[in-house]
Order: sequence, then C-alpha cells, then structure tokens
Amino acid sequence: MSRNLATTPRADGFRMPAEFEPQEQVFMIWPERPDNWRDGGKPAQRAYADVAKAIARYTPVTMLVSAGQYENARARLPREIRIVEMSSNDAWVRDCGPTFVINGEGETRAVCWEFNAWGGLYDGLYFPWDSDNLIAKKIAELERTDYYETPGFVLEGGSIHVDGEGTLLTTEMCLLSPGRNPGMTRSHIEEKLAEYLSIDKVIWLTDGIDPEETNGHIDDVACFVRPGEVACIWTDDEADPFHEVARKSYETLSRATDAKGRTLKVHKLTTTKVPVTLGAGFAIDEIEGTAPRTAGDLCIASYMNFLITNGAVIVPQYEDEHDALALTQIKAMFPDYDVVGVPTREVAYGGGNIHCITQQQPGRSAR
Amino acid sequence: MSRNLATTPRADGFRMPAEFEPQEQVFMIWPERPDNWRDGGKPAQRAYADVAKAIARYTPVTMLVSAGQYENARARLPREIRIVEMSSNDAWVRDCGPTFVINGEGETRAVCWEFNAWGGLYDGLYFPWDSDNLIAKKIAELERTDYYETPGFVLEGGSIHVDGEGTLLTTEMCLLSPGRNPGMTRSHIEEKLAEYLSIDKVIWLTDGIDPEETNGHIDDVACFVRPGEVACIWTDDEADPFHEVARKSYETLSRATDAKGRTLKVHKLTTTKVPVTLGAGFAIDEIEGTAPRTAGDLCIASYMNFLITNGAVIVPQYEDEHDALALTQIKAMFPDYDVVGVPTREVAYGGGNIHCITQQQPGRSAR
Repeated sequence: MSRNLATTPRADGFRMPAEFEPQEQVFMIWPERPDNWRDGGKPAQRAYADVAKAIARYTPVTMLVSAGQYENARARLPREIRIVEMSSNDAWVRDCGPTFVINGEGETRAVCWEFNAWGGLYDGLYFPWDSDNLIAKKIAELERTDYYETPGFVLEGGSIHVDGEGTLLTTEMCLLSPGRNPGMTRSHIEEKLAEYLSIDKVIWLTDGIDPEETNGHIDDVACFVRPGEVACIWTDDEADPFHEVARKSYETLSRATDAKGRTLKVHKLTTTKVPVTLGAGFAIDEIEGTAPRTAGDLCIASYMNFLITNGAVIVPQYEDEHDALALTQIKAMFPDYDVVGVPTREVAYGGGNIHCITQQQPGRSAR
Repeated sequence: MSRNLATTPRADGFRMPAEFEPQEQVFMIWPERPDNWRDGGKPAQRAYADVAKAIARYTPVTMLVSAGQYENARARLPREIRIVEMSSNDAWVRDCGPTFVINGEGETRAVCWEFNAWGGLYDGLYFPWDSDNLIAKKIAELERTDYYETPGFVLEGGSIHVDGEGTLLTTEMCLLSPGRNPGMTRSHIEEKLAEYLSIDKVIWLTDGIDPEETNGHIDDVACFVRPGEVACIWTDDEADPFHEVARKSYETLSRATDAKGRTLKVHKLTTTKVPVTLGAGFAIDEIEGTAPRTAGDLCIASYMNFLITNGAVIVPQYEDEHDALALTQIKAMFPDYDVVGVPTREVAYGGGNIHCITQQQPGRSAR
C-alpha cells in the first residue's frame, strides 16, 4: 500500500538523508525525445546505459522506459538493470522524481514535489510536462512507499543538496526564480524545506551556472562531501564562462556555517579546460513548445554533477583535458570511495549530467 | 534482477501450484478499449474496481493501468490497490500474464507464454496484440522474478487448471485449435505442459462453452476444488446453450483419474437461469481488426469463472435467478472459505469474468 499523507515529514520524524548515506536503489529514465537529444536519442541512450552499468556495480538500478522504447532498452541494458514501463516527457529523474526521506527505523517515504519543467509557462524548457509531474507518485506507488505531495510548491531535486544533519545548499537564482513559486518569500520557501526535508539551516548561493536551463541548479556548482565539508567548482581561468559563479560560490561557502554551527571545509573541483558546446550538424528536431537547441550553444558540463552511491562516486567525463584532474580531485575528497569516470558528453548535450539523470532511494541497506 | 532462463521449470525443480495454495498478490489490468467495452469502458471499470476491492480483503492487488487511464484509475480505486503503469491491448491478465511456478524453498518464477489474442490471424479477437504479449515479461521484471519464455508456443492461463500435484485440466477445443500451435501434436503439447508446469497427467475435456471467443477455455467449464476434487458446470435445462458441453464434461471428469491415480469427486455448479446476451443499444466502437460485438450475442457468463485466493472464493454474480444458488453450491465445495459474490455482468459483456481478469502470484505467504 502507498498512502498519500496529509502530514509533513518533519512532523512524522522523517528527514532527507545525505547522498553518502546507504542507498537501496537508483532510478533513471531512458532518454528518447528527438527534440532534445540528437540523432533520435541513440548516443544519449548509450551514455545512459553506461551510467546505469557503472552504478549497478554498487547499487541496484531501475530504468523507467516508455512503452515504445521498452524492447530496445531491454536489448541495450544488461539483465541486472531492472526495466519498468513508465511514460515521461523527458529523462531527468533527479528533478521530476521523488525526494526520499527516512526515519530512525529505516522506513522510507517519498516527497512528491510539483514539477513544471524548470519554470512552467514563464521560462520552462518544454510543454507539456504532465507525464513528468506524475513520475514521483508513480515511483512511490511502484515501490509501495507512502508519500507526501506539496500542492502548489514547485521544486526539483537538482536544486538542493543536504548533509543529512539539518543543512541544505541551494541557489537564489533557482529557488527564487519567477517561474516556480513567485508568490513565496525566501522565508516561506525555507519553511517548506524545513517541513518536508527536516532542514534547520539553508545556505544560499547566489547563482548557478545555467541561468537559461534549470535557472542555476546547485548540483552543477557545489555539494556535500560529508558533514562539515563541501565541494565547489573552481577555475583560475578568467575566460571560463563559469569563473565568476565559481569564485562567488567558493567565497560564500568559505564564510558559511552549517546547521550544527560548523565552518565548512571547501574542496575545489575543476571545470573543464574547454567549454562544451553543441556541435554543428547535430540532428535535433524542432518542436513548438520546446526550447530550441542551436549549434554553438554552451552546454552545462560540470564535473560536480556526479552521483555518490554506496561507496562509489560516478563522475562525468567530457573528453576534456581536465577529465583526469577531476577524478584525482574527487578521489582526494572521497579517499575511501571508488571514483568511477563515465563518458557522458552526450548527456551534457541534452542539458545535464549524471546527478541530473539519477535519483537515489535511500534504504535499509546497500546491495 | 530478473533473469531470462534457458532451462525449464521442471528441470529446475519448479511446479505450478494450485489456485488454492498461498498467494502473494493478484494482478489485474484496467479495462478501457471502447471497441470491446460498452460506454467507453466505464461500467466495466466499476466492476473491475469492485472485484479488486473484494480480492484485496484477502490478497494484495496490483492493477496495471495505461498512461492515459492512470489518474482516473487512481481516483476510482482505494489506496490499498497498488497501481502500476503498463500498456496493454485489453484487460485479460489471466491470458496474457505469466503463469507463476514455485519450488520447494518458496522461490517464485514466471512462465511467459506466447500470446496471440486467442488465435492470432486465424481466429484471434483483435489485432495487434503486441503490448499484451509483453505483459508477462514486464510483470516478471517488475517483481524482479526470473522467467522462462516459450518461443513459438502459444498458451493462455485461462485454458489450464492444475491441482498442484501433477494434474492439469484443459480442453481439446482450445489447446488443439488451429490458431495456436497448429504444427504440434497432442503429445507434443503435453510435453510442453509437463516441462513448463511439472505436469504428469493431462485430463482432456472435449469442448468449452465459447468456441467463438477463447475457443473453449477450461476456466468457464471446470476447475480443481482441492486435490482429487473438481467442480463442473451443470444444468438440467436442455434448452440451456451450455447443456451439452456441461453433460459431456461431467461424464469425462467422472471417469477420469488424476496424476496420483485418484478417481475424481465431481461437484456440480449451476449455469445461469437465463443466458446473458449483449443488450441492444450498447455503445461499442466498431474497429477493423476487432471481432464485432452485436446486440443479442450470447455472453459467456459462467459461475465457474471464480478466483480462489487465500481463503476466499470471489464469484461472479449476473443479476440472475441462480446467483444465490451458485454461491450456495460453491460454499458447499469450499466450506472453510469465505465465498464472496461480486456483480460482474459488465465483465461478461466484454468476454469473460473474474478468473479471466485476474492472475495470482503464488508466494511466500498471504498478506
């Protein structure tokens, strides 16, 4: 049974765990829409399959696949990846999927935020988003997990990171954006995060690095490495398009204290040497209602967009000169973890990376 | 993980349990196609919901629902019914779903038969049946159950009943029909049943009561009540359209012995007093490729089409004078069970009843 609860997680003794806490499984959505992914989604499907296989060495993976792609996905993925039919508008389960919360007994519940394609009719990326907005509830019911809805409150999982001890990282650019919850003040939004994730302190960065896409999701800029420690993107190259956001974010994090009063240790993580851009001649359908993708567009290729999962960190690799440096820096932050690079330049072409295309279900235990 | 096994259940120590053995859950598929169900499927949806609710008092129910009907089904069904998105061609999970087998340790696996809409291009009831033919494998993967495929061998769950001790009941009309496995002899088919269900003896009845629809599924004619005992439809009314099949089936069963050498005790179960027919003015779409439904058509309304599930028997009720008599006769066969009647005349209008629209997953234990 999967009950739709009218209470809140905080009232019920549930909190959002950090990504470095134990996970039961990871969800992904198989990409296919030809107006976002080049060449009918085929290169992206290969990259998603590689990410799923890398994760499955540490954590069971469930891939959600449309009816039309079910047989192809089954043929492309090894048997250890579980495939479940589910309709969607695109393939970003971090943002349309549920945020799971747990209690002291290891019970898991889901928070099903409203999803409006990163800005709804104001500056969202596609229309409609009705199937995506059902994904979180469908996942909860699939797994027989009770859930909370947040009617009228829009949030994506990629816009928040938590330390599991009461602290949440986010950006003003996203959470205060006019396309999401325009009637809500900063303090009202903080109250929602407090109630639905059991958060005591929100650390606000000003901006993210993709104002045009997700309106600045935190998961391309910074994350928690462990309680009291964060990672933040960094570049000394003033010509890097992400230089200014990196510098400001690093300064803010260096001055910040967390919910327990700790000053944060901040690890620097490199940006790519060369910005990733959409290639000329990419075959991407043009559809009314979908944000256009044009040759030369800057892609959001951040090494920060990794997934921490049961003793491993699964890290994007962009065929860039800094790929190896990023792995070395992440290994220094996570000395006890396997650090696994996966080539995902094709995922960046679609607008995100490994963290954006995964959503962990914390749980009773790792596999 | 859900492996696709190249061995057979018998070789691996698995057998099909009887319906009266413990069940973990029951699957159903939400009806909707307007060329089979009158009035856009709305009366049938109410009946399916009533059946699901009746079963859920004894056994957890998972309702498989198309993307388009997901939200409506969620609104029509109570929370204790789990809803999972899955595409289908129609709503007969007994026939397109898997037949589950178990071993001595209580492990469950699925047998995924080929499904061709009760006769394929020879005399099948609709075209295409591609989504239905994927249902069994999708259910197996959903439940992380290993499965066996039977490439080139067509079978529907409604065409077989077993006693769990090596005996299988079926009809020649169905299993030897030209639309299913025309190249296979009776003994070759018996070998398949032996290998995939661990069957030692097949009891063949000649005919079923619906030559035009399922080509005579056994589940409208007879079933096992417990090892050594069967139920068989019966009527003294020579004008009853099912009189002759009932008489011949009763005689065959009375002479039969099972896999253990027992002579069967045969219980009589009444037919309806008045045959059920399609009403005039039913709004049913006419679609090329779908068998037409015409006012006055005889419907297959058999009380035998009940589901045995964890201490209960869920029995069709047809607004017929014999409804109460059927319940009394079934209670006499199953004195220790709850016998629960559910009004399902609308399901009969679509071509089957409670047994046809359910598929049990045997398992570790009842709820």
